[in-house]
Amino acid sequence: MAQEKRTEISELGEFGLIKHLTEHIKLTNESSKVGVGDDAAVLDYGDKDVLVTSDLLLEGIHFDLTYTPLKHLGYKAAIVNFSDIYAMNGKPKQVIVSLGVSRKFSVENLEEFYDGLTLACNNYGVDVVGGDTNSSMTGLTISITCIGEVEKGKAVLRSGAKVNDLICVSGDLGSAYMGLQLLEREKMVFNKAAEISPDFSGKEYILERQLKPEARKDVVDLLAAHNIVPNAMIDISDGLSSELLHLCTESHCGCRVYEDKIPIDYQAASLAEEMNLNLTTAALNGGEDYELLFTVPLSMNEEISQIQQVRPIGYICRQSLGSRLLTRDGNEIDLIAQGWKSF
Amino acid sequence: MAQEKRTEISELGEFGLIKHLTEHIKLTNESSKVGVGDDAAVLDYGDKDVLVTSDLLLEGIHFDLTYTPLKHLGYKAAIVNFSDIYAMNGKPKQVIVSLGVSRKFSVENLEEFYDGLTLACNNYGVDVVGGDTNSSMTGLTISITCIGEVEKGKAVLRSGAKVNDLICVSGDLGSAYMGLQLLEREKMVFNKAAEISPDFSGKEYILERQLKPEARKDVVDLLAAHNIVPNAMIDISDGLSSELLHLCTESHCGCRVYEDKIPIDYQAASLAEEMNLNLTTAALNGGEDYELLFTVPLSMNEEISQIQQVRPIGYICRQSLGSRLLTRDGNEIDLIAQGWKSF
Repeated sequence: MAQEKRTEISELGEFGLIKHLTEHIKLTNESSKVGVGDDAAVLDYGDKDVLVTSDLLLEGIHFDLTYTPLKHLGYKAAIVNFSDIYAMNGKPKQVIVSLGVSRKFSVENLEEFYDGLTLACNNYGVDVVGGDTNSSMTGLTISITCIGEVEKGKAVLRSGAKVNDLICVSGDLGSAYMGLQLLEREKMVFNKAAEISPDFSGKEYILERQLKPEARKDVVDLLAAHNIVPNAMIDISDGLSSELLHLCTESHCGCRVYEDKIPIDYQAASLAEEMNLNLTTAALNGGEDYELLFTVPLSMNEEISQIQQVRPIGYICRQSLGSRLLTRDGNEIDLIAQGWKSF
Repeated sequence: MAQEKRTEISELGEFGLIKHLTEHIKLTNESSKVGVGDDAAVLDYGDKDVLVTSDLLLEGIHFDLTYTPLKHLGYKAAIVNFSDIYAMNGKPKQVIVSLGVSRKFSVENLEEFYDGLTLACNNYGVDVVGGDTNSSMTGLTISITCIGEVEKGKAVLRSGAKVNDLICVSGDLGSAYMGLQLLEREKMVFNKAAEISPDFSGKEYILERQLKPEARKDVVDLLAAHNIVPNAMIDISDGLSSELLHLCTESHCGCRVYEDKIPIDYQAASLAEEMNLNLTTAALNGGEDYELLFTVPLSMNEEISQIQQVRPIGYICRQSLGSRLLTRDGNEIDLIAQGWKSF
């Protein structure tokens, strides 16, 4: 965190700091009535249902500041929450941000974080309506609450999948995980010999997937444009296996997923080969892709095939049949929730 | 944190843990449509405005587990957020709880925390609609988001105070701070000689104010029953001085507060004398009272005097006159925002 200028947080104080960080924020959404600076935000959601999600990101667990620029972290912290709102078939409209900050951070560091956060908010049409900062004994703690809207009764839950539904996924999987492997490898090399610059050429896509992910607003819009209402939906933050099992558990059903249908990017595949990692494992258990996983009635196969950002990877079956991967070589193996944030 | 039984969190895993902690939760409010277990909570606020507030509580900064039982901590963590909603003239309806937990905590520890949290929720009619747990490198991190309702356009902001308004405060001030001083003193004694039991007799009230505070739902209800709508309101979490200055800044005004009108409890006064601490300083700068500070038009003096839980302590004046305390000995001194959570 080399900085040209370093202003200590103590120079501004707690209230001065949050004022400094939020004074340029303008509210743009009709539903945002009162923002930063009161005991609570005031929102008017008219006849829409309100969606609320909250995420806690901890230094050393969810991010490593050795290779995560604070601007990217601010961007990603927002995106992770937007993704949860899109996964309900909703639109994110407001965020509230609380930070716990230790002495190693300067005002400029927090400005960087806020730059990334507000960039994400601007890109997705979201207002920052609340925020505070606290001192922390250790490192950086980020708590983000995101509020969004959905037409009354139109929220898509994890629990709505039906037997014979097509299982679909957006984008590609495993790229964010491979981006992380690359960063970890280069960090090790860097720690051994600081004069060696990391070599990221030809791997920009997977790095961006890890450091600056996007949420699939486009997919939610495309589904609406094609009149497709998923029966069930979840975003993929902890790996395909884990999310599929959540969806099946909540929907009281099982599933079959075809290994050869899982969408994988070329850069991820190439690095997996170079690092001798199993690509399917990366796609099944690697986290942080923030793609959407959803099911639609089989009769919508035609409509789904018209959306190139999305592809079918399997189908929903009875719960008694279990949740399984059909491998390339014709075997069936049980999906296991490896998960991402493990204790 | 001595426990008869200790179940490691790893025995349940991340998803098993949150399921275990939340499986008994029932939704009781009409506005709570979908709770724990999806990507976001789904809420229907009909024609009400929505209030949202979020708080981050960090071990070693906001609480000390040496003398804070986890059940009390869970209770207090909820109350702090309810208080923010009442301070908007609203009613809390839902909370979302995210925990960051290090290895020193067992499943039983987290059950205690949840016991306290759900007790507060039951007492105040609030639903737990979301929650997750994360591993943490250090100690306990608690993030709570509270969602509440208020009649459309009836939210009371910090910015509405008018010149000549009466300044009123509920309950008494400085008690939570004196409770903290007592706990800190007994902790020091205990650290020196573990066989000495702390002596808390006759000090139960100030201890409870620190360890198990309540939010002033009753005051919001009483104001409504007396048809009193405050012009401005804020809850006192960081001390009277700090909150008065926030209110005056946001309302572009100044204030005069009479030292001899500041309500102080007998136990707090007695301990302050015993410990040779200045009582007014405790009331002005001690935090965590969670009383309500509000202003009403002077014409409501009569109505206010009928509510015994509330008393006038001063008045609002022009901004150019500053914000001052009128002391018992007839001096005027500037109010200073000492604040509570300092960097």
